[in-house]
Amino acid sequence: MGPSKPKVVTGDHGYVLEDVPHLIDYLPHLPTYPNPLQDNPAYTVVKQYFVDMDDTVAQKIVTHANSPRGTHFRRAGPRQKVYFKSDDVHACIVTCGGLCPGLNTVIREIVGSLHDMYGVTRIEGIEGGYKGFYSRNTIPLTSKAVNGIHKRGGTIIGTSRGGYDNEKIVNSIQDRGINQVYIIGGDGTQKGASAIYEEVRRRGLQVAVVGIPKTIDNDIPVIDKSFGFDTAVEEAQRAINAAHVEAESNENCIGLVKLMGRNSGFIAMYATLASRDVDCCLIPESPFYLEGQGGLLEYIEKRIKENGHMVIVVAEGAGQDLVAESLKTNDGKDASGNKLLNDVGLWLSQKIKDHFKKQTEMEINLKYIDPTYMIRAVPSNASDNVYCTLLAQSAVHGAMAGYSGFTVGPVHGRECYLPFYRITEKQNKVVITDRMWARMLSSTHQPSFLNTKDVIESIMDEAPPTQLLDDQMADNGLVTKETFVC
Amino acid sequence: MGPSKPKVVTGDHGYVLEDVPHLIDYLPHLPTYPNPLQDNPAYTVVKQYFVDMDDTVAQKIVTHANSPRGTHFRRAGPRQKVYFKSDDVHACIVTCGGLCPGLNTVIREIVGSLHDMYGVTRIEGIEGGYKGFYSRNTIPLTSKAVNGIHKRGGTIIGTSRGGYDNEKIVNSIQDRGINQVYIIGGDGTQKGASAIYEEVRRRGLQVAVVGIPKTIDNDIPVIDKSFGFDTAVEEAQRAINAAHVEAESNENCIGLVKLMGRNSGFIAMYATLASRDVDCCLIPESPFYLEGQGGLLEYIEKRIKENGHMVIVVAEGAGQDLVAESLKTNDGKDASGNKLLNDVGLWLSQKIKDHFKKQTEMEINLKYIDPTYMIRAVPSNASDNVYCTLLAQSAVHGAMAGYSGFTVGPVHGRECYLPFYRITEKQNKVVITDRMWARMLSSTHQPSFLNTKDVIESIMDEAPPTQLLDDQMADNGLVTKETFVC
Amino acid sequence: MGPSKPKVVTGDHGYVLEDVPHLIDYLPHLPTYPNPLQDNPAYTVVKQYFVDMDDTVAQKIVTHANSPRGTHFRRAGPRQKVYFKSDDVHACIVTCGGLCPGLNTVIREIVGSLHDMYGVTRIEGIEGGYKGFYSRNTIPLTSKAVNGIHKRGGTIIGTSRGGYDNEKIVNSIQDRGINQVYIIGGDGTQKGASAIYEEVRRRGLQVAVVGIPKTIDNDIPVIDKSFGFDTAVEEAQRAINAAHVEAESNENCIGLVKLMGRNSGFIAMYATLASRDVDCCLIPESPFYLEGQGGLLEYIEKRIKENGHMVIVVAEGAGQDLVAESLKTNDGKDASGNKLLNDVGLWLSQKIKDHFKKQTEMEINLKYIDPTYMIRAVPSNASDNVYCTLLAQSAVHGAMAGYSGFTVGPVHGRECYLPFYRITEKQNKVVITDRMWARMLSSTHQPSFLNTKDVIESIMDEAPPTQLLDDQMADNGLVTKETFVC
Amino acid sequence: MGPSKPKVVTGDHGYVLEDVPHLIDYLPHLPTYPNPLQDNPAYTVVKQYFVDMDDTVAQKIVTHANSPRGTHFRRAGPRQKVYFKSDDVHACIVTCGGLCPGLNTVIREIVGSLHDMYGVTRIEGIEGGYKGFYSRNTIPLTSKAVNGIHKRGGTIIGTSRGGYDNEKIVNSIQDRGINQVYIIGGDGTQKGASAIYEEVRRRGLQVAVVGIPKTIDNDIPVIDKSFGFDTAVEEAQRAINAAHVEAESNENCIGLVKLMGRNSGFIAMYATLASRDVDCCLIPESPFYLEGQGGLLEYIEKRIKENGHMVIVVAEGAGQDLVAESLKTNDGKDASGNKLLNDVGLWLSQKIKDHFKKQTEMEINLKYIDPTYMIRAVPSNASDNVYCTLLAQSAVHGAMAGYSGFTVGPVHGRECYLPFYRITEKQNKVVITDRMWARMLSSTHQPSFLNTKDVIESIMDEAPPTQLLDDQMADNGLVTKETFVC
Repeated sequence: MGPSKPKVVTGDHGYVLEDVPHLIDYLPHLPTYPNPLQDNPAYTVVKQYFVDMDDTVAQKIVTHANSPRGTHFRRAGPRQKVYFKSDDVHACIVTCGGLCPGLNTVIREIVGSLHDMYGVTRIEGIEGGYKGFYSRNTIPLTSKAVNGIHKRGGTIIGTSRGGYDNEKIVNSIQDRGINQVYIIGGDGTQKGASAIYEEVRRRGLQVAVVGIPKTIDNDIPVIDKSFGFDTAVEEAQRAINAAHVEAESNENCIGLVKLMGRNSGFIAMYATLASRDVDCCLIPESPFYLEGQGGLLEYIEKRIKENGHMVIVVAEGAGQDLVAESLKTNDGKDASGNKLLNDVGLWLSQKIKDHFKKQTEMEINLKYIDPTYMIRAVPSNASDNVYCTLLAQSAVHGAMAGYSGFTVGPVHGRECYLPFYRITEKQNKVVITDRMWARMLSSTHQPSFLNTKDVIESIMDEAPPTQLLDDQMADNGLVTKETFVC
Repeated sequence: MGPSKPKVVTGDHGYVLEDVPHLIDYLPHLPTYPNPLQDNPAYTVVKQYFVDMDDTVAQKIVTHANSPRGTHFRRAGPRQKVYFKSDDVHACIVTCGGLCPGLNTVIREIVGSLHDMYGVTRIEGIEGGYKGFYSRNTIPLTSKAVNGIHKRGGTIIGTSRGGYDNEKIVNSIQDRGINQVYIIGGDGTQKGASAIYEEVRRRGLQVAVVGIPKTIDNDIPVIDKSFGFDTAVEEAQRAINAAHVEAESNENCIGLVKLMGRNSGFIAMYATLASRDVDCCLIPESPFYLEGQGGLLEYIEKRIKENGHMVIVVAEGAGQDLVAESLKTNDGKDASGNKLLNDVGLWLSQKIKDHFKKQTEMEINLKYIDPTYMIRAVPSNASDNVYCTLLAQSAVHGAMAGYSGFTVGPVHGRECYLPFYRITEKQNKVVITDRMWARMLSSTHQPSFLNTKDVIESIMDEAPPTQLLDDQMADNGLVTKETFVC
Repeated sequence: MGPSKPKVVTGDHGYVLEDVPHLIDYLPHLPTYPNPLQDNPAYTVVKQYFVDMDDTVAQKIVTHANSPRGTHFRRAGPRQKVYFKSDDVHACIVTCGGLCPGLNTVIREIVGSLHDMYGVTRIEGIEGGYKGFYSRNTIPLTSKAVNGIHKRGGTIIGTSRGGYDNEKIVNSIQDRGINQVYIIGGDGTQKGASAIYEEVRRRGLQVAVVGIPKTIDNDIPVIDKSFGFDTAVEEAQRAINAAHVEAESNENCIGLVKLMGRNSGFIAMYATLASRDVDCCLIPESPFYLEGQGGLLEYIEKRIKENGHMVIVVAEGAGQDLVAESLKTNDGKDASGNKLLNDVGLWLSQKIKDHFKKQTEMEINLKYIDPTYMIRAVPSNASDNVYCTLLAQSAVHGAMAGYSGFTVGPVHGRECYLPFYRITEKQNKVVITDRMWARMLSSTHQPSFLNTKDVIESIMDEAPPTQLLDDQMADNGLVTKETFVC
Repeated sequence: MGPSKPKVVTGDHGYVLEDVPHLIDYLPHLPTYPNPLQDNPAYTVVKQYFVDMDDTVAQKIVTHANSPRGTHFRRAGPRQKVYFKSDDVHACIVTCGGLCPGLNTVIREIVGSLHDMYGVTRIEGIEGGYKGFYSRNTIPLTSKAVNGIHKRGGTIIGTSRGGYDNEKIVNSIQDRGINQVYIIGGDGTQKGASAIYEEVRRRGLQVAVVGIPKTIDNDIPVIDKSFGFDTAVEEAQRAINAAHVEAESNENCIGLVKLMGRNSGFIAMYATLASRDVDCCLIPESPFYLEGQGGLLEYIEKRIKENGHMVIVVAEGAGQDLVAESLKTNDGKDASGNKLLNDVGLWLSQKIKDHFKKQTEMEINLKYIDPTYMIRAVPSNASDNVYCTLLAQSAVHGAMAGYSGFTVGPVHGRECYLPFYRITEKQNKVVITDRMWARMLSSTHQPSFLNTKDVIESIMDEAPPTQLLDDQMADNGLVTKETFVC
């Protein structure tokens, strides 16, 4: 049996459904059972508690009177029939990669959904990320054990980078008799989950493999936003506010805040928009240069001369080309295969100080704040808690309904089941030719640092001008989701 | 000239556009000007900074392969041509009704958008709500004056209930030469705004009347959620947490928290879902009864006996029929025409205490918390700040583009222009036959209190069962938006 | 054997030591053991880890060159010799009365001190207050069980009012073989603790009875302040801030905040001083009247007319005579024997509304906030955490050293052992003829409401004018501690 | 006229008063005026609103029955007679050095006290620290201008390091006709203030020079604690908590938090005591070493092996000898003359990583958090607000009463006037042979790292063992204040 193929269904007027795999794709004779939710008192008066099998969610919502209908995804939610008897379910949960607010809430809610809705009692936490499958004991996860964990930051089952070993992991799943696997992690982790699914399928196992996308950076395409992002933006305000106070209280003072965002600048952009105290926001998607006319240092000088102070927000992945050029040591990767970043915050601090030291007439003060770990470790806020609840419930409904090899997330506010490739094939990025970034520029009054015809044209080439950019590009596989609020 | 008619446009495959009025509907020869944003450096590389005149946003996003396309709304955003010269604009802003986190951010961003994007300098705040139009001086609103106000709760231009007098207000607008009116307020306020628009139109004035919907209760239909709601749910956690601590630390203790929600229980429901410490959540949409089998008091007794403590959240509009029956004094209305509510929190406290006093064998402790004013007065959180920014910018773009007699808000994450009648004809309510409420019940383990056949049937009649309930009902004018996360 | 007598020792130049009882007072032949702290690595380089037996702390610190030295208390801390072998210790902890931030920290630190410093392992929590001694099981308190509890509000061992039964409690202590009793509670609880000590002494038991004073109101005399007070004042700021925002945003609006303080107005006074947003602060110690010239309503009218808004803070025990007169229903008492207070906040709201309703020309808005339970339930802040740590350690050192029938607390920043009678014979009150209250008046600009010669004279009689008031009065048994900062 | 001499007065039984200078010391014929507070309505019923001229505050409060009375300081507060007519007062305020929570509150309260209590209207802020006296314009400080500033971090009049030029500053004071100078700053700043006083005295000017001690590190001797310290400890909890969450969620993870404290470890010690999540706390006063038996790295290895994670708190001034040895570049000083510190946090991170990289069998994760600027920039909490109010009022009362060349602060909770030399001659430090440090060690379970006889002996030499260490040493000029709670 070869690897699974994308399941694409078409309909009227350009309707396309990008469906997710199901256990019966390779185990066609599986028996089904009535969904136990039918007997759940909480669902007594819920008329539509089972999602219609035909419900799909449109990705394209900005349309013209005569537009084709475009891509759709399968709506998440409980199905009338399930492919697991509750007593037979043996589920496990694993968290991989860096911390993100909401991890504990997702864990809590997977356990709660399995237990309260489906009566499942065998649920285990794989300790310390992927490698825990083969090198650690598991942690029993009962309703009681997870009761208050959503009020704490971090993950109670531990996490780590790397440790992915497809063979060992699927062996472990098979040996332990696990038949539902919930894998919470970022881009790389989801690629691993996809491969685990393929191997499970190859072996013909009745195991539902569910990916739950996690990235504090909000760089996952298709879905509205990722869990923890809201909390992270909220918490980032503290650091920006401190930078602002320092900048205003000291002479010629620059408050510099480094925020998360290896490849995408969403946290930096939203924190800047929410705070309104920022004079310059630098993100990976928007190239900049230091020296010369129109460069960053010129802008800094101008602001300091005019206002006596300024606040700069820099995403960790911004200006990597410049850092690399400075340091020529940029070839390493970390354990998950992420390119090791030289610290742009420290680098930029040094560059600014060096520049002003040469300018004899002006002494500056630079206050550098790196709140990364203080942001990652907070508990999720109320909005993220609700988000995580829906995400976890959707994941559980999907697994019980026999879907496997899929991930889950909200598309325009509706939970959907998405094929893995849709969220791993590229990363969600801030589109700097889009209005949200223009709003950001307009709020900081910073220049675009894209003053040469060449740079603009090269960007234009990447993202051809179009009136319906966001949706068409998405349909073209070019991710330009303007993001959740627009 | 009679009152304006709904502008409905149809297209292929069941496409319907519910459009908003425009100044040229009754002033067909108005000149246009190029949008000054074309020269704004922040927008240099933004390729699609002008919204295509044909862009519309689909209300129905859960579809089947062969579904009709349904209702659409006009997409918000800057237009290539504007109907006001920047120097001619004389704008005013008024805030009406109760406090809501984000009011100051909306004010700040309307001023900022008019000034920074369109170069408008004559902007005034109408002091103290509608009545300020004819009984107070105005407050000049400059960029500097509004600079840090988003970090403060409340509204810097003051607010009040009532005071609406169509004739006096339009006279004042005309006398002062105001040509853009931004009206921030709830249901009743938006009805007033609609009537102001009709009068302005009747008089043939070139005045853009823009409504900005405000309700901490999230009871406005069509739009994803209202500003301040997120912040309110967050802040409500504090009160619930305190109730939980009191309940757990004292013997046979009930922590009772009253939250906002005159007609809809969204804050109570989301705060309950986010907190997970609640054993019973009562909202206006879900009837309950106190005495007898299956009643609230029986449930309370059961929980106290089992656990020794419990937390109850009650929305202010819950159980009004019971309160009225108890008190028979429920006929008044407040200055805005809202039905005066007898305080369900105090009433319920008394009822519970009375019940247990009669039960000699169990003494209970009841701790009642009413955090209403502490919630309303907090500054908006980061997420609401960004929301308010987009809302204000969209309003300003619409007015400059000559639209008038409309309101604004996000539909599936896209800012849209909506006809007034769409948001005033009914209120958004929690649909208790929907899955979100079932989730809530499942999280609290409370019974539905809908144990009689009659009650269920009467609900069934209101909201006929359907697999695509939320979207179809919306198309039928029956609002059942499941809300922003689902 | 009769009841114990005060142990008073005199010295040079007016030196007086008010000492605490010791087990050897009635068990003169008890053996002693070396303090195990001698072998504790943490204390290796601590040269003075044992308190000199002669160390005492001066109560009077404002002195003249020729002043007598006045009252002293025994300094708390570890002694060279202890009267319990670690293996023989069987300790219990009980919390009584209302919640107060820091309860869990005190519990945690008593357990931690007994275990880490003295190697004690048998420690139990008495569940649910005094009555738990005879009607409930105990809760084992290990280091692990109390590990993170200081980050939670409330008390993990539960609390209740009343339930005091001397005979049953001492029987329970004797039956269970408990020999160290830590009793955390307020005024009434400490009186109970004193009686428990007397009974233990009468029976000749080797049981150390230690009272740990708890009152969120800070109304305990002699000690600098009570635990949780700092946290409560901090948290009260939220409510005052909300009242301020409401008041400023609405027309003719009064924000009214009720704060804790049955008999003393410390929380109200300090919260007012810290916040600076308050226009009027009413406390039990300072009588006021509503009607007529110089009355509260006149002042409110004046402020509203001048400023358009005002903020009032009222301590729950303020104006009880007026409330009583209004309601004539003031004779009940609660389970702890506290006089049941009619709610001054609701009463005052009504009185103000009634007054302005009669004034046809001015409509007012009144926003009433009662944050009591939201304040009581928060975890203690850092400062209170450190305070609780020292308090708990001092209590444990005292019990191990054989003291019994005493309470503990900081006097001018030094932990002391105090006889029970010193903290129960009267309550600490705000001295309204003192400078701190004058500061408060000067910050709010409110009148003193003491406009008649009679009232002033009656106060003068109670607290005769003196230049060294605070110290002399304290020496006379008249408590006038100006409070911890002055 | 030579420099001023210490004013020392002796009394009965070893009573010593270390008095502060007064204008009449060199201007003996100055006229006096009645204190305008006599007519202030807030002070109507305050019987002792004027401090008795003989009131002094005892520094030694732990005494024996036959102890001598020791050092006393002059009690702060309003005097019956003042040496300035309100209309003649021309006051200025300057803030120097790094940010500290509470600066704005002190500014606000100096302005408020001068204005509300004494009717002074000419008050100016010197912009940007000492150098503002001669290089900048002043900022007018009215009651209105300072109204809400206590809710913001930083200092509204700006600050800077260095810029001290005695001649230019006193010229500026004389030229502008300023007669009250309030100087808020740390150790170095107070030395400058002392020299300004000497120069003012030399010139025979009727100018009151008042120092207000500021140091977030709490390293000022004699006074109970410095303003902002409480807030800083509170805020430091966030960082420690984040480190704890990271450490617990990741495998073999070390959370390392650097806190303020160049020369003294109070913030680190109190934050550790308050948090209880810390496994190791390193401060400047307690030497440590990395390698070998009993060294830090051995301890880290042990903890990681036992627990899988640990949290380290390091004060910025800890281990400077080791850092210097590593880097040999430690000779610079910053603009205020503070020794430039090489960053111990980054250095220690590197050392730990290097050590474990060499240990092939264990891979560790290190999460480094430096919250310094996020702590400094927060607004002061309620407790610090009240502290700052009393401090500012005391300063103003002192200046009006004709004292000059003094500083102010609480001694055992009573505001006192202190000679400059008392707070500048040495720094307050954590006494590691004292019980508070032992408590800290006992809470972290860390070793003392003082395992060699030599080290202990050298410490012993500095601080000779004594039972009454804190007080006697203070009397000997050897500062060992155990700190504010003990």
